[in-house]
Amino acid sequence: MYRLYDFLPSGNGYKIRLLLTQLGIPFERIEVNILQGESRSLEFLAKNPSGRIPVLEIESSVFLSESNAVLLYLSEGTPFLPTDHLQRTRLYEWLFWEQNIHEPAIASSRFWIQHLNVAADRKDELQRRHRLGNEALALMEKHLSTQRFLVGDCYTIADIALFAYTHVADEGGFKLSQFRAIQAWIERIKAQPNHIPITYSNFQSFPPPTK
Amino acid sequence: MYRLYDFLPSGNGYKIRLLLTQLGIPFERIEVNILQGESRSLEFLAKNPSGRIPVLEIESSVFLSESNAVLLYLSEGTPFLPTDHLQRTRLYEWLFWEQNIHEPAIASSRFWIQHLNVAADRKDELQRRHRLGNEALALMEKHLSTQRFLVGDCYTIADIALFAYTHVADEGGFKLSQFRAIQAWIERIKAQPNHIPITYSNFQSFPPPTK
Repeated sequence: MYRLYDFLPSGNGYKIRLLLTQLGIPFERIEVNILQGESRSLEFLAKNPSGRIPVLEIESSVFLSESNAVLLYLSEGTPFLPTDHLQRTRLYEWLFWEQNIHEPAIASSRFWIQHLNVAADRKDELQRRHRLGNEALALMEKHLSTQRFLVGDCYTIADIALFAYTHVADEGGFKLSQFRAIQAWIERIKAQPNHIPITYSNFQSFPPPTK
Repeated sequence: MYRLYDFLPSGNGYKIRLLLTQLGIPFERIEVNILQGESRSLEFLAKNPSGRIPVLEIESSVFLSESNAVLLYLSEGTPFLPTDHLQRTRLYEWLFWEQNIHEPAIASSRFWIQHLNVAADRKDELQRRHRLGNEALALMEKHLSTQRFLVGDCYTIADIALFAYTHVADEGGFKLSQFRAIQAWIERIKAQPNHIPITYSNFQSFPPPTK
Protein backbone atom coordinates (compact mmCIF):
# COMPACT_ATOMS: atom_id res chain seq x y z
CA MET A 1 0.00 0.00 0.00
CA TYR A 2 1.18 3.52 -0.78
CA ARG A 3 2.47 5.50 2.16
CA LEU A 4 2.12 9.30 2.21
CA TYR A 5 4.42 11.41 4.39
CA ASP A 6 2.28 14.45 4.94
CA PHE A 7 1.32 17.42 7.14
CA LEU A 8 -2.43 17.93 7.44
CA PRO A 9 -2.57 21.75 7.00
CA SER A 10 -0.37 21.54 3.86
CA GLY A 11 -2.03 22.32 0.53
CA ASN A 12 0.77 20.47 -1.27
CA GLY A 13 0.00 17.37 0.82
CA TYR A 14 -3.73 17.85 0.29
CA LYS A 15 -3.27 17.68 -3.51
CA ILE A 16 -2.05 14.10 -3.17
CA ARG A 17 -4.63 13.05 -0.56
CA LEU A 18 -7.41 14.42 -2.75
CA LEU A 19 -6.26 12.75 -5.97
CA LEU A 20 -5.57 9.38 -4.30
CA THR A 21 -9.04 9.50 -2.78
CA GLN A 22 -10.72 10.43 -6.05
CA LEU A 23 -8.82 7.64 -7.82
CA GLY A 24 -9.93 5.21 -5.08
CA ILE A 25 -6.34 4.29 -4.20
CA PRO A 26 -5.95 3.35 -0.52
CA PHE A 27 -2.89 4.67 1.30
CA GLU A 28 -1.43 5.04 4.75
CA ARG A 29 -0.92 8.63 5.88
CA ILE A 30 2.03 9.42 8.14
CA GLU A 31 1.95 12.82 9.81
CA VAL A 32 5.29 14.69 9.74
CA ASN A 33 5.29 17.72 12.01
CA ILE A 34 7.22 20.18 9.88
CA LEU A 35 6.87 22.87 12.55
CA GLN A 36 8.98 20.73 14.89
CA GLY A 37 11.66 20.05 12.27
CA GLU A 38 10.57 16.49 11.52
CA SER A 39 11.04 17.01 7.78
CA ARG A 40 14.68 18.01 8.38
CA SER A 41 15.73 14.88 10.29
CA LEU A 42 18.40 12.68 8.70
CA GLU A 43 15.82 9.92 8.42
CA PHE A 44 13.46 12.16 6.46
CA LEU A 45 16.20 13.70 4.28
CA ALA A 46 17.00 10.16 3.10
CA LYS A 47 13.45 10.06 1.70
CA ASN A 48 13.55 13.58 0.20
CA PRO A 49 16.84 15.50 0.20
CA SER A 50 14.99 18.81 -0.11
CA GLY A 51 13.40 18.19 3.30
CA ARG A 52 9.79 18.82 2.39
CA ILE A 53 6.49 17.01 2.45
CA PRO A 54 4.58 15.51 0.70
CA VAL A 55 6.57 12.38 -0.09
CA LEU A 56 4.81 9.34 -1.55
CA GLU A 57 6.43 5.93 -0.98
CA ILE A 58 5.16 3.87 -3.93
CA GLU A 59 7.07 0.73 -2.98
CA SER A 60 9.55 -0.08 -0.29
CA SER A 61 12.21 2.68 -0.36
CA VAL A 62 10.98 4.27 -3.61
CA PHE A 63 10.00 7.82 -2.70
CA LEU A 64 8.40 10.46 -4.93
CA SER A 65 8.54 14.15 -4.04
CA GLU A 66 7.34 17.48 -5.49
CA SER A 67 3.55 17.51 -5.23
CA ASN A 68 2.86 18.34 -8.87
CA ALA A 69 5.27 15.62 -10.06
CA VAL A 70 3.36 13.15 -7.88
CA LEU A 71 0.05 14.36 -9.37
CA LEU A 72 1.44 13.68 -12.86
CA TYR A 73 2.70 10.25 -11.78
CA LEU A 74 -0.65 9.20 -10.33
CA SER A 75 -2.90 10.66 -13.03
CA GLU A 76 -1.19 9.16 -16.09
CA GLY A 77 -3.75 7.11 -17.99
CA THR A 78 -6.71 8.53 -16.03
CA PRO A 79 -9.30 11.19 -16.96
CA PHE A 80 -7.46 13.62 -14.64
CA LEU A 81 -4.71 14.07 -17.28
CA PRO A 82 -5.53 15.01 -20.90
CA THR A 83 -3.92 12.92 -23.64
CA ASP A 84 -3.97 15.63 -26.31
CA HIS A 85 -0.48 17.13 -26.62
CA LEU A 86 -1.51 20.80 -26.60
CA GLN A 87 -4.07 20.31 -23.81
CA ARG A 88 -1.46 18.53 -21.73
CA THR A 89 0.93 21.44 -22.32
CA ARG A 90 -1.74 23.85 -21.08
CA LEU A 91 -1.97 21.69 -17.95
CA TYR A 92 1.83 21.81 -17.53
CA GLU A 93 1.69 25.61 -17.82
CA TRP A 94 -0.72 25.78 -14.88
CA LEU A 95 1.32 23.34 -12.78
CA PHE A 96 4.57 25.29 -13.24
CA TRP A 97 2.85 28.64 -12.78
CA GLU A 98 1.40 27.30 -9.52
CA GLN A 99 4.83 26.35 -8.19
CA ASN A 100 6.66 29.44 -9.43
CA ILE A 101 4.11 32.23 -8.89
CA HIS A 102 0.96 31.18 -7.03
CA GLU A 103 2.38 28.99 -4.24
CA PRO A 104 5.29 31.27 -3.23
CA ALA A 105 2.84 34.17 -2.91
CA ILE A 106 -0.34 32.60 -1.54
CA ALA A 107 0.81 29.48 0.32
CA SER A 108 3.78 31.30 1.86
CA SER A 109 1.56 34.13 3.11
CA ARG A 110 -0.79 31.58 4.67
CA PHE A 111 2.07 29.65 6.28
CA TRP A 112 3.68 32.79 7.67
CA ILE A 113 0.41 34.07 9.08
CA GLN A 114 -0.90 30.74 10.43
CA HIS A 115 2.28 29.13 11.71
CA LEU A 116 5.13 31.63 12.01
CA ASN A 117 5.53 34.83 13.88
CA VAL A 118 6.22 37.17 10.98
CA ALA A 119 8.94 39.39 12.36
CA ALA A 120 8.96 43.10 11.58
CA ASP A 121 11.80 42.69 9.05
CA ARG A 122 9.65 40.31 6.96
CA LYS A 123 6.59 42.59 6.85
CA ASP A 124 7.73 44.22 3.60
CA GLU A 125 8.24 40.83 2.02
CA LEU A 126 4.78 39.70 3.19
CA GLN A 127 3.25 42.82 1.59
CA ARG A 128 5.12 42.09 -1.64
CA ARG A 129 3.74 38.53 -1.64
CA HIS A 130 0.23 39.81 -1.04
CA ARG A 131 0.55 42.02 -4.09
CA LEU A 132 1.85 39.10 -6.20
CA GLY A 133 -0.84 36.79 -4.80
CA ASN A 134 -3.61 39.22 -5.72
CA GLU A 135 -2.18 39.47 -9.25
CA ALA A 136 -2.21 35.66 -9.43
CA LEU A 137 -5.82 35.47 -8.24
CA ALA A 138 -6.82 38.15 -10.76
CA LEU A 139 -5.25 36.08 -13.55
CA MET A 140 -7.21 32.99 -12.45
CA GLU A 141 -10.38 35.06 -12.13
CA LYS A 142 -10.11 36.27 -15.71
CA HIS A 143 -9.41 32.77 -17.03
CA LEU A 144 -12.25 31.18 -15.04
CA SER A 145 -14.76 33.82 -16.12
CA THR A 146 -14.94 32.01 -19.48
CA GLN A 147 -13.94 28.46 -18.50
CA ARG A 148 -15.57 25.94 -16.15
CA PHE A 149 -12.22 24.34 -15.32
CA LEU A 150 -8.63 25.43 -15.90
CA VAL A 151 -7.90 23.16 -18.88
CA GLY A 152 -10.55 22.43 -21.46
CA ASP A 153 -13.94 21.60 -20.04
CA CYS A 154 -12.82 18.86 -17.64
CA TYR A 155 -11.76 18.59 -14.03
CA THR A 156 -8.03 17.70 -14.13
CA ILE A 157 -5.00 17.72 -11.84
CA ALA A 158 -4.50 21.37 -12.86
CA ASP A 159 -7.68 22.16 -10.90
CA ILE A 160 -6.49 20.04 -7.96
CA ALA A 161 -3.07 21.75 -7.96
CA LEU A 162 -4.55 25.26 -8.01
CA PHE A 163 -7.50 24.51 -5.74
CA ALA A 164 -5.26 23.34 -2.89
CA TYR A 165 -4.02 26.77 -1.83
CA THR A 166 -6.60 28.96 -3.61
CA HIS A 167 -9.59 27.77 -1.60
CA VAL A 168 -7.83 28.60 1.69
CA ALA A 169 -6.32 31.88 0.47
CA ASP A 170 -8.38 33.81 3.05
CA GLU A 171 -6.20 32.17 5.72
CA GLY A 172 -3.24 33.96 4.09
CA GLY A 173 -4.84 37.39 4.23
CA PHE A 174 -6.49 37.39 0.78
CA LYS A 175 -10.14 38.25 0.14
CA LEU A 176 -11.68 35.53 -2.03
CA SER A 177 -15.04 37.31 -1.87
CA GLN A 178 -13.61 39.73 -4.48
CA PHE A 179 -13.23 36.90 -7.00
CA ARG A 180 -16.64 35.65 -8.17
CA ALA A 181 -15.48 33.31 -10.93
CA ILE A 182 -12.96 31.68 -8.57
CA GLN A 183 -15.69 31.16 -6.00
CA ALA A 184 -17.95 29.47 -8.55
CA TRP A 185 -15.03 27.25 -9.65
CA ILE A 186 -14.38 26.30 -6.01
CA GLU A 187 -18.00 25.18 -5.71
CA ARG A 188 -17.71 23.11 -8.91
CA ILE A 189 -14.63 21.40 -7.50
CA LYS A 190 -16.27 20.69 -4.17
CA ALA A 191 -19.13 19.03 -6.08
CA GLN A 192 -16.83 16.47 -7.75
CA PRO A 193 -17.30 12.79 -6.74
CA ASN A 194 -15.36 11.78 -3.62
CA HIS A 195 -14.21 15.29 -2.85
CA ILE A 196 -12.68 15.63 0.63
CA PRO A 197 -11.87 18.82 2.55
CA ILE A 198 -8.27 19.75 3.39
CA THR A 199 -8.95 18.87 7.04
CA TYR A 200 -10.16 15.32 6.27
CA SER A 201 -7.79 12.72 7.73
CA ASN A 202 -9.73 9.47 8.24
CA PHE A 203 -8.21 7.60 5.29
CA GLN A 204 -8.93 4.22 6.84
CA SER A 205 -12.41 4.64 5.38
CA PHE A 206 -12.55 4.15 1.59
CA PRO A 207 -14.32 5.58 -0.21
CA PRO A 208 -14.79 8.57 2.07
CA PRO A 209 -18.34 9.24 3.20
CA THR A 210 -20.12 11.51 0.72
CA LYS A 211 -21.78 14.59 2.07
CA MET B 1 8.31 28.91 -38.29
CA TYR B 2 8.23 29.06 -34.50
CA ARG B 3 8.58 32.51 -33.01
CA LEU B 4 10.24 32.93 -29.58
CA TYR B 5 9.54 36.03 -27.49
CA ASP B 6 12.66 36.22 -25.40
CA PHE B 7 15.17 38.32 -23.43
CA LEU B 8 18.78 37.36 -24.10
CA PRO B 9 20.11 37.39 -20.47
CA SER B 10 17.17 35.22 -19.30
CA GLY B 11 17.97 31.65 -18.27
CA ASN B 12 14.33 30.70 -18.77
CA GLY B 13 14.54 31.97 -22.36
CA TYR B 14 17.89 30.25 -22.85
CA LYS B 15 16.35 26.86 -21.98
CA ILE B 16 14.11 27.12 -25.04
CA ARG B 17 16.80 28.52 -27.37
CA LEU B 18 19.13 25.71 -26.35
CA LEU B 19 16.61 22.89 -26.82
CA LEU B 20 15.30 24.24 -30.15
CA THR B 21 18.89 24.47 -31.38
CA GLN B 22 19.78 20.97 -30.23
CA LEU B 23 16.62 19.61 -31.85
CA GLY B 24 17.54 21.45 -35.07
CA ILE B 25 14.27 23.40 -35.12
CA PRO B 26 14.63 26.82 -36.76
CA PHE B 27 12.89 29.75 -35.08
CA GLU B 28 12.67 33.50 -35.14
CA ARG B 29 13.78 35.21 -31.96
CA ILE B 30 12.04 38.42 -30.90
CA GLU B 31 13.76 40.40 -28.18
CA VAL B 32 11.41 41.73 -25.48
CA ASN B 33 13.09 44.24 -23.20
CA ILE B 34 11.60 43.23 -19.85
CA LEU B 35 13.62 45.96 -18.10
CA GLN B 36 11.64 48.56 -20.03
CA GLY B 37 8.28 46.96 -19.28
CA GLU B 38 7.81 45.45 -22.74
CA SER B 39 6.50 42.18 -21.23
CA ARG B 40 3.78 44.15 -19.40
CA SER B 41 2.29 45.87 -22.46
CA LEU B 42 -1.32 45.04 -23.36
CA GLU B 43 -0.04 43.53 -26.59
CA PHE B 44 2.29 41.17 -24.72
CA LEU B 45 -0.24 40.30 -22.00
CA ALA B 46 -2.52 39.02 -24.77
CA LYS B 47 0.23 36.48 -25.54
CA ASN B 48 0.94 35.58 -21.90
CA PRO B 49 -1.36 36.97 -19.19
CA SER B 50 1.36 36.47 -16.57
CA GLY B 51 3.54 39.01 -18.40
CA ARG B 52 6.72 37.01 -18.62
CA ILE B 53 9.07 35.68 -21.25
CA PRO B 54 9.75 33.19 -22.77
CA VAL B 55 6.67 32.74 -24.92
CA LEU B 56 6.77 30.38 -27.90
CA GLU B 57 4.32 31.01 -30.74
CA ILE B 58 3.91 27.57 -32.31
CA GLU B 59 1.38 28.67 -34.90
CA SER B 60 -0.36 31.94 -35.60
CA SER B 61 -1.82 33.16 -32.27
CA VAL B 62 -1.09 29.92 -30.36
CA PHE B 63 1.28 30.89 -27.57
CA LEU B 64 3.00 28.61 -25.04
CA SER B 65 4.40 29.96 -21.78
CA GLU B 66 6.21 28.65 -18.67
CA SER B 67 9.70 27.60 -19.79
CA ASN B 68 9.56 24.08 -18.36
CA ALA B 69 6.14 23.44 -19.91
CA VAL B 70 7.60 24.49 -23.26
CA LEU B 71 10.55 22.12 -22.73
CA LEU B 72 8.09 19.26 -22.13
CA TYR B 73 6.08 20.25 -25.22
CA LEU B 74 9.12 20.31 -27.48
CA SER B 75 10.87 17.21 -26.13
CA GLU B 76 7.95 14.76 -26.31
CA GLY B 77 9.01 11.83 -28.50
CA THR B 78 12.70 12.83 -28.50
CA PRO B 79 15.69 11.44 -26.53
CA PHE B 80 15.53 14.53 -24.31
CA LEU B 81 12.49 13.09 -22.47
CA PRO B 82 12.51 9.56 -20.96
CA THR B 83 9.58 7.30 -21.83
CA ASP B 84 9.80 5.15 -18.68
CA HIS B 85 7.10 6.27 -16.21
CA LEU B 86 9.30 6.43 -13.09
CA GLN B 87 12.21 8.07 -14.96
CA ARG B 88 9.85 10.66 -16.34
CA THR B 89 8.54 11.33 -12.83
CA ARG B 90 12.11 11.87 -11.64
CA LEU B 91 12.47 14.41 -14.44
CA TYR B 92 9.22 16.13 -13.37
CA GLU B 93 10.58 16.32 -9.80
CA TRP B 94 13.64 18.24 -11.03
CA LEU B 95 11.56 20.58 -13.21
CA PHE B 96 9.19 21.53 -10.37
CA TRP B 97 12.03 21.79 -7.86
CA GLU B 98 13.76 24.16 -10.29
CA GLN B 99 10.76 26.46 -10.53
CA ASN B 100 9.84 26.34 -6.82
CA ILE B 101 13.23 26.33 -5.08
CA HIS B 102 16.22 26.84 -7.39
CA GLU B 103 14.98 29.60 -9.68
CA PRO B 104 13.45 31.87 -6.99
CA ALA B 105 16.74 31.70 -5.06
CA ILE B 106 19.43 31.67 -7.75
CA ALA B 107 17.86 33.38 -10.75
CA SER B 108 16.28 36.09 -8.59
CA SER B 109 19.60 36.85 -6.90
CA ARG B 110 21.27 37.16 -10.30
CA PHE B 111 18.49 39.38 -11.66
CA TRP B 112 18.53 41.65 -8.63
CA ILE B 113 22.31 42.01 -8.68
CA GLN B 114 22.71 42.36 -12.47
CA HIS B 115 19.66 44.42 -13.36
CA LEU B 116 18.09 46.03 -10.30
CA ASN B 117 19.40 48.33 -7.67
CA VAL B 118 18.74 46.17 -4.61
CA ALA B 119 17.49 48.70 -2.12
CA ALA B 120 18.53 48.45 1.51
CA ASP B 121 15.15 47.05 2.54
CA ARG B 122 15.63 44.05 0.22
CA LYS B 123 19.13 43.18 1.50
CA ASP B 124 17.73 40.77 4.12
CA GLU B 125 15.65 39.04 1.48
CA LEU B 126 18.67 38.77 -0.83
CA GLN B 127 20.67 37.18 1.99
CA ARG B 128 17.83 34.72 2.62
CA ARG B 129 17.80 33.78 -1.06
CA HIS B 130 21.57 33.28 -1.02
CA ARG B 131 21.18 30.84 1.85
CA LEU B 132 18.41 28.96 0.03
CA GLY B 133 20.41 29.04 -3.22
CA ASN B 134 23.46 27.54 -1.54
CA GLU B 135 21.27 24.79 -0.06
CA ALA B 136 19.92 24.10 -3.56
CA LEU B 137 23.42 23.94 -5.05
CA ALA B 138 24.54 21.59 -2.24
CA LEU B 139 21.62 19.28 -3.05
CA MET B 140 22.61 19.20 -6.74
CA GLU B 141 26.27 18.69 -5.80
CA LYS B 142 25.43 15.62 -3.75
CA HIS B 143 23.23 14.14 -6.48
CA LEU B 144 25.78 14.81 -9.25
CA SER B 145 28.62 13.30 -7.25
CA THR B 146 27.20 9.87 -8.19
CA GLN B 147 25.35 10.66 -11.43
CA ARG B 148 26.60 11.96 -14.79
CA PHE B 149 23.30 13.66 -15.52
CA LEU B 150 20.29 14.51 -13.36
CA VAL B 151 18.01 11.69 -14.54
CA GLY B 152 19.41 8.28 -15.35
CA ASP B 153 22.55 8.33 -17.42
CA CYS B 154 21.28 10.57 -20.22
CA TYR B 155 21.26 14.26 -21.04
CA THR B 156 17.60 15.34 -20.78
CA ILE B 157 15.54 18.51 -20.45
CA ALA B 158 16.07 18.23 -16.67
CA ASP B 159 19.73 19.05 -17.32
CA ILE B 160 18.77 21.91 -19.63
CA ALA B 161 16.30 23.33 -17.07
CA LEU B 162 18.83 23.24 -14.22
CA PHE B 163 21.86 24.22 -16.31
CA ALA B 164 20.25 27.49 -17.42
CA TYR B 165 20.64 29.36 -14.14
CA THR B 166 23.18 27.11 -12.40
CA HIS B 167 26.03 27.78 -14.84
CA VAL B 168 25.66 31.55 -14.37
CA ALA B 169 25.10 31.38 -10.59
CA ASP B 170 28.35 33.32 -10.01
CA GLU B 171 26.58 36.33 -11.55
CA GLY B 172 24.11 36.09 -8.64
CA GLY B 173 26.79 36.11 -5.96
CA PHE B 174 27.27 32.33 -5.61
CA LYS B 175 30.64 30.59 -5.69
CA LEU B 176 30.46 27.69 -8.13
CA SER B 177 34.13 26.89 -7.47
CA GLN B 178 32.96 25.28 -4.21
CA PHE B 179 30.92 22.71 -6.14
CA ARG B 180 33.20 20.28 -7.97
CA ALA B 181 30.56 17.81 -9.16
CA ILE B 182 28.42 20.64 -10.52
CA GLN B 183 31.42 22.04 -12.39
CA ALA B 184 32.12 18.65 -13.99
CA TRP B 185 28.43 18.34 -14.96
CA ILE B 186 28.55 21.83 -16.52
CA GLU B 187 31.48 20.72 -18.67
CA ARG B 188 29.60 17.57 -19.74
CA ILE B 189 26.66 19.70 -20.80
CA LYS B 190 28.83 22.16 -22.71
CA ALA B 191 30.27 19.16 -24.61
CA GLN B 192 26.84 18.07 -25.94
CA PRO B 193 26.28 18.36 -29.72
CA ASN B 194 25.08 21.81 -30.87
CA HIS B 195 25.49 23.39 -27.44
CA ILE B 196 25.23 27.17 -27.54
CA PRO B 197 26.14 29.66 -24.80
CA ILE B 198 23.49 31.81 -23.13
CA THR B 199 24.82 34.86 -25.00
CA TYR B 200 24.45 33.26 -28.45
CA SER B 201 21.88 35.10 -30.54
CA ASN B 202 22.65 34.47 -34.22
CA PHE B 203 19.82 32.01 -34.84
CA GLN B 204 19.73 32.78 -38.55
CA SER B 205 22.61 30.30 -38.81
CA PHE B 206 21.48 26.65 -38.41
CA PRO B 207 23.04 24.53 -37.12
CA PRO B 208 25.13 26.89 -34.99
CA PRO B 209 28.86 26.81 -35.65
CA THR B 210 30.53 24.16 -33.46
CA LYS B 211 33.42 25.27 -31.35
